[in-house]
This record gives sequence, structure tokens and C-alpha cells, in this order.
Amino acid sequence: MEKRAEVTGSLVTVGDEILLGDIPNGNSHHIASELRSKGFRLDRIVTVGDREDEIAEILEKSVSRSQFLIVTGGLGPTEDDRTCSAASRAFGRAQVTDEDYCQWLRGRAAERRLAWSDELARLAELPEGAVKIGLEMAGFFLEHEGVPCYFLPGVPGEMRMLLSEMVIPDLEERFPGRYVYLKQVVRVQGLFESEIGRRLRELDCRHMGVEIGYLPQGRENWVTLFARGASEDECRRQLAEACRKVVDLIGAHNVSGYGDDVLEKVVGRLLRQSGWRMAVAESCTGGLLSARVTSVPGASDYFDRGFVTYSNRAKMDLLDVPGELIEVHGAVSEPVALEMARGARVRAGAEVAAAVTGIAGPGGGSPVKPVGTVYIACVTPRVETVEKHLFSGNREDIRGSAVHTALQILWRCLTDDSHIHCH
Amino acid sequence: MEKRAEVTGSLVTVGDEILLGDIPNGNSHHIASELRSKGFRLDRIVTVGDREDEIAEILEKSVSRSQFLIVTGGLGPTEDDRTCSAASRAFGRAQVTDEDYCQWLRGRAAERRLAWSDELARLAELPEGAVKIGLEMAGFFLEHEGVPCYFLPGVPGEMRMLLSEMVIPDLEERFPGRYVYLKQVVRVQGLFESEIGRRLRELDCRHMGVEIGYLPQGRENWVTLFARGASEDECRRQLAEACRKVVDLIGAHNVSGYGDDVLEKVVGRLLRQSGWRMAVAESCTGGLLSARVTSVPGASDYFDRGFVTYSNRAKMDLLDVPGELIEVHGAVSEPVALEMARGARVRAGAEVAAAVTGIAGPGGGSPVKPVGTVYIACVTPRVETVEKHLFSGNREDIRGSAVHTALQILWRCLTDDSHIHCH
Repeated sequence: MEKRAEVTGSLVTVGDEILLGDIPNGNSHHIASELRSKGFRLDRIVTVGDREDEIAEILEKSVSRSQFLIVTGGLGPTEDDRTCSAASRAFGRAQVTDEDYCQWLRGRAAERRLAWSDELARLAELPEGAVKIGLEMAGFFLEHEGVPCYFLPGVPGEMRMLLSEMVIPDLEERFPGRYVYLKQVVRVQGLFESEIGRRLRELDCRHMGVEIGYLPQGRENWVTLFARGASEDECRRQLAEACRKVVDLIGAHNVSGYGDDVLEKVVGRLLRQSGWRMAVAESCTGGLLSARVTSVPGASDYFDRGFVTYSNRAKMDLLDVPGELIEVHGAVSEPVALEMARGARVRAGAEVAAAVTGIAGPGGGSPVKPVGTVYIACVTPRVETVEKHLFSGNREDIRGSAVHTALQILWRCLTDDSHIHCH
Repeated sequence: MEKRAEVTGSLVTVGDEILLGDIPNGNSHHIASELRSKGFRLDRIVTVGDREDEIAEILEKSVSRSQFLIVTGGLGPTEDDRTCSAASRAFGRAQVTDEDYCQWLRGRAAERRLAWSDELARLAELPEGAVKIGLEMAGFFLEHEGVPCYFLPGVPGEMRMLLSEMVIPDLEERFPGRYVYLKQVVRVQGLFESEIGRRLRELDCRHMGVEIGYLPQGRENWVTLFARGASEDECRRQLAEACRKVVDLIGAHNVSGYGDDVLEKVVGRLLRQSGWRMAVAESCTGGLLSARVTSVPGASDYFDRGFVTYSNRAKMDLLDVPGELIEVHGAVSEPVALEMARGARVRAGAEVAAAVTGIAGPGGGSPVKPVGTVYIACVTPRVETVEKHLFSGNREDIRGSAVHTALQILWRCLTDDSHIHCH
């Protein structure tokens, strides 16, 4: 078997808008994760502003320490786009016009009845020896001292297209003998990170080529397993074995899924298996729970309807919650949550219903029911449950936590009745 | 007037999880934007992995070229947290134990009946001369050759707290004579970026200290105005003047708001002013439109209820859409969208209603009604309107575009009837 080495590269993202905090650097996350899935890794990500000297300095340094270099941004037609001239400077090359591409641009401009301008002409300028990549978008490739350098536009859609159709295939061809990496995410519900750490403390999978990591993700925790091997098959075997051990130690009933199996997908799958349909009744979450459930393609197979009963009148009209119940206990209360779920179930003619009522704030709290108090109910043909929670954070955090917890409760109700407290 | 200089610093974010694409670098966006609003700017953001030599190299370089340095991540109690030892190495300092903090940690551990461990002891180790910041979280401060260096935890909530309560106040004290920056965002609806660029082409506000930028934000476009001046008052005056010119050229009826005035807030304000209440009926957006409307605190003043009528039965039951209408035209059609809005309005006893029905995909499309086809209706006491749109992208993109467009239509209906096509 040939010797395999880790292939690592650098990413440089150019743009004042990132340094000024106008936009998040979404491109770097996408590039890092796509590369990783193909067995390449980044060992540094640098963001610089739209200044030629700064960009040139970073390019020079990055190319000398990397096996490949990816650069995004600063390639447009306007004055503040300095990446191309910076590359020429960093790599000691003249700036030349790509005559073929210039010709093509002129043709396109004529078709669209656009006057030829200096801005358009700039788009055809490249560092000497570079090859234009991408049509109707910025981008070029050049090799410098044996290091492939890919210059991509900052526009996310264009960058993504060039990355998957050009950069990654080219890298795969250049580095055929590299390691294969495979990742698995184990999604854990209802345990704190420290408790997961405690349960997995003794587990060491490095001897089988698997590294274990932890990532708290809001209301759920991820255990990530990274396998490195000579082939995809080898990685898959290693992952499967490590995964089995992790799930054993954590407890299978705390694991809701793997990889992309978000909770709403798992809930949908359970509903489809049982042949049950569901309805949702929401107050403080204002439609978010229905939205999460219906974000899964094909949700119409099991989702019938949602009631966003924001006013008390709506709770009475649409869900038959008795007015006295609201008067006595308040709209944010255990009995009202339960009646909302029951009402939704009956009115929709569905087998399953979930209901959420709470105080998302910032106003509306009281000493007895502070902001963040949320009641969540779930009813199925086999079980009725209602839970009180106190979530922290701002309005958005509280609504997000309430939705995720409602999905957790639905998941538990649909998998195993014994885990939940029943009324 | 004293001479003012721009205060620029570097940000170093540490973590394999960012380089491997496991999580986006949300911390850097938050830090950049918070600093900017206080008159500081970043001129470089570097992300490195959890390797001591790499971190030390970057710290050494960054501190020599910056007026301040912020570092996040790699400060926890576990083996892969290398930032503290890297800082000791980079700045040529011994690693020492902060006895006071160690004492405090021991007390906390005893209270919680936790055994004292090497991991806990590591939390009290700091580079010599550093000052511990933050309680019950990682973090320290040190000054190196006159440059303040803030080491913050990677946990977003903890980082944010230390940034706003400690780092920024300290920076403000250290650099009193800096420029003030103020930013204004003009939110433009219904115009392409190129058209906005054309209308603003002749406008140059640099002589009044204001820079103009463009940021496409999905379905709306932002014109950003950046003022730099000696005082907040000066900036405010400059911004107000530039803003007036921008709005004149773009057309006031295309501007929905400024700064944080998201469309759902503007719509809410218009409803509150008119004293009207609203209801929402949704099919393909599955609750997202209601969720956006109710994301605004106090939305209960004008939002009554939402109907997530996913099944045809739900559209008939809850909104009185005639079954024959669905049979003849299909659930995704102009007349059904309009009937949904009318039904929602009547059933909720509200003045205003919006309805969305469409094909979010990936399945369910046809040659006549491809994936992305969405009908959006809006009814008020003065106007009834329905629009057909064809959105591109995946399921999430299409649902997002539909919600934003529905809010645009609501906004136009509530501001000026003459802009919309009436049936």
C-alpha cells in the first residue's frame, strides 16, 4: 500500500465587509466543510480587507506554507476589487489581458446592448500564466512553484459552483494518494455535555483511527466521530464500530439520529411508519414548530395542519379551549397547553398533536411566570403529556428552545412512552 | 481639535472545529460588528487549529502589527485547549498558577461535590503577568509591549458577555481620541442591485465623510452608509444628509426602513397605526410567515392568528375554500390563494390577511406549475391583491423567498394601494 499523507491548504477570504462585521464569513465554513468531506483539510483561514499590499503579503506567505491555496473575494469589476493585482504582485507576474475571454465578454456586452467599459475590460485581466475559470463570473487558476492556487468569486452561489465543479475535482486529480476522511455525527438529546463526557471518558478509539469530539448545538449535543483511513470502506468500518461503542455508553434512548437526521426528520419518519397524522397548536412560538415540521420534504404525508392561536379568542374558536380555563389558570398554563393539544388533535382529525404556550418576552413576565416559562403538551393515541420549562435568553432563543424541546417531546412520545411523565 | 487616528486590531480564533467546517465562525462576525459600532476596526482575522506552535506563531506576529489583539477559543480544561500555553510561549512568559482563582475554584468544586482534578487545576494556570477575567469561565488579559491582549472563551454566550462588559469598555478607556464611526443601513425593496447602483452612480458622499456600499441580502438590498468623524453628532449629521440624498435617488416608495427595521417590524408598525388586526393563512411556507410576523415583541397587539392549512381538507375546514375551486384550479393557484386570504380574514374577524400557497419542492412540480411557483394574496379593507411568483433555489430558499415577498406585498398594501395590481 502506498504511503498516504495529509493534504492541507490555506484559505484566504478577501473583503472589508467581513472585517467590518457587515456579513458573516459563510464562504469559509462551506469551503472548509466541503474540503474535509473529500479528504482535504485547511490549516489556516485568513481574512483580509480590500488593500492590495495586505492581500499580496498574505498570498505570498500562504503559498509558501501550503499544498494548495484557495482565495475568495475581491475579484469583481470595481475599484475596490484588488485580489487580481495583489496576486500579480505577490507572485511577481505581469498583469495581462486574456484576449479570448475579452472577445467573449465583448460579444456578451453587444448581445445585451451594454456599452464596453473599463470595468468590463478589467474582468479580462489576469496575472500572467493564469487560466480563466468560470463563465460570466470572476475566477482564475494559477500554479505557483508547484502549488495550485484557485481564485474564486466571493458571491456564494458562484463560489460554490466553481468549488464543486472545478476546484475539488482538480485537487482530487493532483493528490490521488491522500487519506480518506469520513465523519459521523451522533445526535444526543436530553443530556448535558459534561454528562456525555463522563459517560465517554474511558472510551479511546484512536487505535482504530477514529477521533471523538463534542459539539454543543443549542438544545442538543453532537458527538462527532472522525475516521481516517486508506479507503472509504476502511473508514466506514472503523466508524461503524466506534459508533456502536459510543451509543452503548450514551444509551440508545438518548440518541435521536445520525448525520443529517435532524429531529423533525426523525419525528416525520416515526409518523410515517405508524401511519399517524399530526397537527400542531402554537402560541408563543407563532408558527415556528409547524415550520420546522414542514421543512422536511414530503411532510404533507403526515402533517395535516397547524393552528397559530396567538389571541385567547383564537384558542377558544379553533381549539375549543374553555374560556374559564384561560381565566382561572391563564393562557400560559399546564391545563391550557393540554387542552390546546387535545383540541388540535380533535379538530384536525389527526392521531397526534403537540401544543406550545409560553412567554417569549421581553414583556409579559411575572414573578410566578417569568419570561421564558413555556408549557409543551403532546397527545397521541397512547399517551398524553405536558411539561413545564423555563428557557433563558432573548425572545428568539426562547422560541427556538421551545420548538426544539417540543420536537424532543414528540420524539420521545413516538418512540417509547415509558420515558415520559404521563398525566 | 485633537488629531484622531483609526484604531485597528487583530482577531485570532482558535479551533479545529472551524477549520474542519464543523461550525461556522459566528464569533468573528459578532466581534467585528460590535467593535465597528464602537469605532474600532479589525484589519485581519486569522483562524488556526488547536496546535501550540501554530497558535504561538500567529500570536507573535499579530501582536507586533496591531493596536489590540483579541483571541477566542482553546481556553478550556481539556488537552486540546492550547491557547494559554501558546500565549506563554509566544510572549516569553512562564506558565503560573493564579492562587486566588485556584482557591475560588476549589471552593466551587467543594460546593458542588466535585473531586479536584488536573483538568480543574489547569483552569487556574495563566501566563505570568496575566490577569484572570470572567468568573466560572475561561479568559484572561495581558499587556505585551503596550498592546492589550484579550483572551476570551470560544463559547459564544461567554465570549459575548466578556466582550461587551470588559473588552470594549477597556478599549474605550485606552483609546479615547479615536474616530467615531456610525453606520446606517437603508433597506430597499423590489429593485435589483444593478438598478440601485445605476440610480446612485453619480452620488459621491466622500467629501462629507460618508462611504456608500451595497449589500444584497437575499430578497432585499441594503445600501450601507458609513460616516467617520470626530464626534457622534458630526457623524449623525453627515449620515442624515447622505441618507436623504440616497432615498431621493432610489425613491422613497422603494425604501422600507433603516437599520434594524426588518420588514415584519415595519408591517407591525403600520398595523398598529391603523388599528387593524391581521391573520395569516399558509400552505407551502408551513408557519414561517406567522413566525416572522410574531418574531416582533408585542405582535399580539395586531396579530390574531395563523392557519397552517397544509392539507386540502384544512383549507376547506378552516378557511372555507370551496372544494370545487381546489379541484378545478389546484391548491396552488390564484383563486385559491385569494380565497385563503379572504377566509382567514373572515374567520379571524381581522381587517387584514395574507395567504401563501405554492410548491416548495423538491417534489410536486409540473411543467405548468414547476417547483418554486408560489401565489401570494393580501386583503385589507381597501384592497385585494394576488401575485404569482417563480422562486429559485432549494426548498428552504423557496420558502424564505415566499415569506419575504409576502411581507413586501403586505407592506405595499398597508402603505400605498396604488403600487400594487388590484383585482
